[in-house]
Amino acid sequence: MDCLFCKICAKTIDSDIVYEDEKVIAFLDINPVNPGHVLVLPKIHVEHLVDLSDEDILPVMKVVKKIMKALMSQSDVEGINILQNNYSAAGQVVPHVHFHVIPRKQGDGHRHWPGTAYQEGESAIMAERIKSAL
Amino acid sequence: MDCLFCKICAKTIDSDIVYEDEKVIAFLDINPVNPGHVLVLPKIHVEHLVDLSDEDILPVMKVVKKIMKALMSQSDVEGINILQNNYSAAGQVVPHVHFHVIPRKQGDGHRHWPGTAYQEGESAIMAERIKSAL
Repeated sequence: MDCLFCKICAKTIDSDIVYEDEKVIAFLDINPVNPGHVLVLPKIHVEHLVDLSDEDILPVMKVVKKIMKALMSQSDVEGINILQNNYSAAGQVVPHVHFHVIPRKQGDGHRHWPGTAYQEGESAIMAERIKSAL
Repeated sequence: MDCLFCKICAKTIDSDIVYEDEKVIAFLDINPVNPGHVLVLPKIHVEHLVDLSDEDILPVMKVVKKIMKALMSQSDVEGINILQNNYSAAGQVVPHVHFHVIPRKQGDGHRHWPGTAYQEGESAIMAERIKSAL
C-alpha cells in the first residue's frame, strides 16, 4: 500500500481528520488554498472519478455537502469551490480520487480560469464529437 | 422563470446540448476554459450544492462520469477537472447549481491555485472549528 491517502485512512500517517464513516474520510489539506480547505475521499482506493461506482459516489457527495455546510457556517467563509482533478494534466497529485472543498472569501486573490468563446460553427462540431463518444 | 439554465432546460434559449435525460442536462459552456468544456446540471432549480437532495445528486454525478469518459476518449484530452462553484465569492455566475467538466492538456496554461502550509498548531485548531460545526 504505497498510496498516501490509503495510509491516512489506515492511520499509519497522521492527518487532521474532520469526519470519518465506514466509507468516507475527510481531512485538512496540508497546503490549503485557504485555511479550512478539506479533502473528501472514499476509503476504497480508485484513481479517478470514473472508477468510482455509483454506490460509492453518493456517500462521498453526502460528506462533501456536510463539510460545505460546516464551512459556510464559519463567519469568514463567503463561498465554496468543489474541485476534483483527474490525471496529472489536470493537477492530480495523489492518485486516489478526492474532492477538494475550498472555502472562499470575496477578494481572496484566487483567479478563475478565463473562458474563450467558440468561433462560429465550432461549438456544434464539438458537441457532435462529444455526443458520438457517449 | 428568470434563470438562464432553466430556460436552456425548457429550450427557450438555444444551447449545444450533448446529453439529456429526465433529471439532468449537459451542454457546452459558451466560454470554454478549453474546447469541449461541458456544464452538467439537474433540471430542478436549486442554487447551491447543499440544496440538492441526495436523490438528485446521484443522477447528476452519473452524467458527470459519462461526460468525463466521453471527453477522455478524445485524442487531445489528457485530464479532466470537475469544478462546482457556490456563491459569487467562489465564482458562481448563474445561480442554478452546475458542475463544470473541463478537459485539460499538459501545458495548456491554466494555473492551479497555490497552497500555503499551516503554521504549527493552526491546523488542529481549524480541524476543531470544522468538527464542531458538523
